[in-house]
Amino acid sequence: MKFLAICGSLRKKSTNLGMLRFAQTHAPEGVSIDIADLADIPFYNADVTEKPAAVVKLLAQMGEADALILGCTEYNYSIAPALKNVLDWASREPDNNLLNGKPAALMGSGGGMGTSRSQYHMRQVCVFLNMHPLNKPEVFANAFANAFDDQGNLTDSKIQANIIAQLEALQSWTAQLQK
Amino acid sequence: MKFLAICGSLRKKSTNLGMLRFAQTHAPEGVSIDIADLADIPFYNADVTEKPAAVVKLLAQMGEADALILGCTEYNYSIAPALKNVLDWASREPDNNLLNGKPAALMGSGGGMGTSRSQYHMRQVCVFLNMHPLNKPEVFANAFANAFDDQGNLTDSKIQANIIAQLEALQSWTAQLQK
Amino acid sequence: MKFLAICGSLRKKSTNLGMLRFAQTHAPEGVSIDIADLADIPFYNADVTEKPAAVVKLLAQMGEADALILGCTEYNYSIAPALKNVLDWASREPDNNLLNGKPAALMGSGGGMGTSRSQYHMRQVCVFLNMHPLNKPEVFANAFANAFDDQGNLTDSKIQANIIAQLEALQSWTAQLQK
Amino acid sequence: MKFLAICGSLRKKSTNLGMLRFAQTHAPEGVSIDIADLADIPFYNADVTEKPAAVVKLLAQMGEADALILGCTEYNYSIAPALKNVLDWASREPDNNLLNGKPAALMGSGGGMGTSRSQYHMRQVCVFLNMHPLNKPEVFANAFANAFDDQGNLTDSKIQANIIAQLEALQSWTAQLQK
Repeated sequence: MKFLAICGSLRKKSTNLGMLRFAQTHAPEGVSIDIADLADIPFYNADVTEKPAAVVKLLAQMGEADALILGCTEYNYSIAPALKNVLDWASREPDNNLLNGKPAALMGSGGGMGTSRSQYHMRQVCVFLNMHPLNKPEVFANAFANAFDDQGNLTDSKIQANIIAQLEALQSWTAQLQK
Repeated sequence: MKFLAICGSLRKKSTNLGMLRFAQTHAPEGVSIDIADLADIPFYNADVTEKPAAVVKLLAQMGEADALILGCTEYNYSIAPALKNVLDWASREPDNNLLNGKPAALMGSGGGMGTSRSQYHMRQVCVFLNMHPLNKPEVFANAFANAFDDQGNLTDSKIQANIIAQLEALQSWTAQLQK
Repeated sequence: MKFLAICGSLRKKSTNLGMLRFAQTHAPEGVSIDIADLADIPFYNADVTEKPAAVVKLLAQMGEADALILGCTEYNYSIAPALKNVLDWASREPDNNLLNGKPAALMGSGGGMGTSRSQYHMRQVCVFLNMHPLNKPEVFANAFANAFDDQGNLTDSKIQANIIAQLEALQSWTAQLQK
Repeated sequence: MKFLAICGSLRKKSTNLGMLRFAQTHAPEGVSIDIADLADIPFYNADVTEKPAAVVKLLAQMGEADALILGCTEYNYSIAPALKNVLDWASREPDNNLLNGKPAALMGSGGGMGTSRSQYHMRQVCVFLNMHPLNKPEVFANAFANAFDDQGNLTDSKIQANIIAQLEALQSWTAQLQK
């Protein structure tokens, strides 16, 4: 089973990216996790008729993934544009929506609410895309509570355990939806 | 009084942009409206320490505006990234938030709901930014109901009247908040 | 398969109730639909230690149902309290949440947005309850567009077809989640 | 200046009610705060043509208040029905909406997010009602972090200070909107 992780923050030391790296190295048995590279993805623009190469590559990765892990960086109480933008690109494919029916897990690191506001907006996005985000466990990390080192690596054992539980739940949920 | 209009869509023939052009040419007496150019605005990235020239110019325009008009293009039941992104840039200024206390009006053109889902997400963004969006009138245009010509110009007289009413309400609301 | 339909409006001629009656008489083969009676359900109050008889009966119905159909009457851009209240009662059961894992379909009749604002709030409620609302088809009826007769009966053939499609989707979704 | 405080929880020892009691006894100079009694308020039902006495009394209090303080008890990630219900009653007055233009402050006590999910839903309700909720400071209390005594009284000095700051901000905001 292949999961694709996508991070809303473009920062190298992003704590949201740190959570995805932790997920990648703690995938359940039978699961491999790739982390998408958004550095060269431009804003979606309907006037652009030829998709840039970075977009083509990313859409292929998204299409092949059995499930997505969305690192829901929160800016100003909603979704970071870089993350929302790749979902927008994916939704405009010729077959209309390569994300159709795809399971997902949401996590994020932010202020006191741990990106919850961004995650609830993301859940609404998933309705249109007909994606199936896990309800539980939700994963919310407080970026300012010594949960990460100065490189953005996740060091808090409680959040680590929460991510591991979420990955196992995503594996089960994906298996159920593929039956 | 100066309003700055910002469109979530980057398309040249965008109907959302068409609404903003209509607003620009029908500003109430005593109000001038500029339309922001987002073509060269990159994604916000905290690793970028020197702001690109296009960002510097846009932030200056935002700071000088008495109020914002947000063309809330909706992609996948939430805000178009290009619009959200400029608000994110503005929120990271040295003085922390040049949008603090700024009034705003929301409008948009989309499917049957006329970008309402995007607009309610935008209202939550405004809470963090301490912006003051008008409650009424709300402006929702159905892009598929012959309300626009093939260049994206707004031709529906009912929506035109609705925009004019909103601009007058924004003028009053701005005046009240500046007392 | 048994579905339980619950209406947010307490009005006898409610158009939301009319939609549920239509659903009841057009259940897919192999499905029966009951409509809950909320007339005697009081507000949830944690100080009330003995559940009223009407609540006990309703919770039993909810527990036995394979899926719920929620008539998401919208008041003031959010969920009608009578509907939210029965979900709140259900969430406080000794076993903590008898709705855990239950599939659901949302529909509603309202102003121009057809209760969409209420439905998106309801979807967030379902996250906590670990319910699984169908993503598609969404069912939104405009109560003021001659879609109902003066008794609240649904007469619009397009919305009727939409409800029938939703019921079939709910049947499939429920079967998949019960595998 | 008169504020009316309304609590979403009907429990006698509610921590949300405890926050409102603290507000009442720490009103800024020139402000008096009443706490509404919701014990006898039934569900809104459009079939009920004669308003119950308790509703009539409450609506009069709401109409006379210069601003509302909403104790946004959160059940299942949204608004407690008892609170939403009084706003629904108020919105159906002959003059259509006695809350029109009314300022408000939101606070609440709940799990780790401190009723934030309920408060953002409430803010959407305020759009339709044309109420003007304060953006800042937001007041979120964690009910499980020793912030309250066993009678629901608020004992946490940081949250107390936050409420006092919010009341002062509401006084200023109300004065500005009444100019």
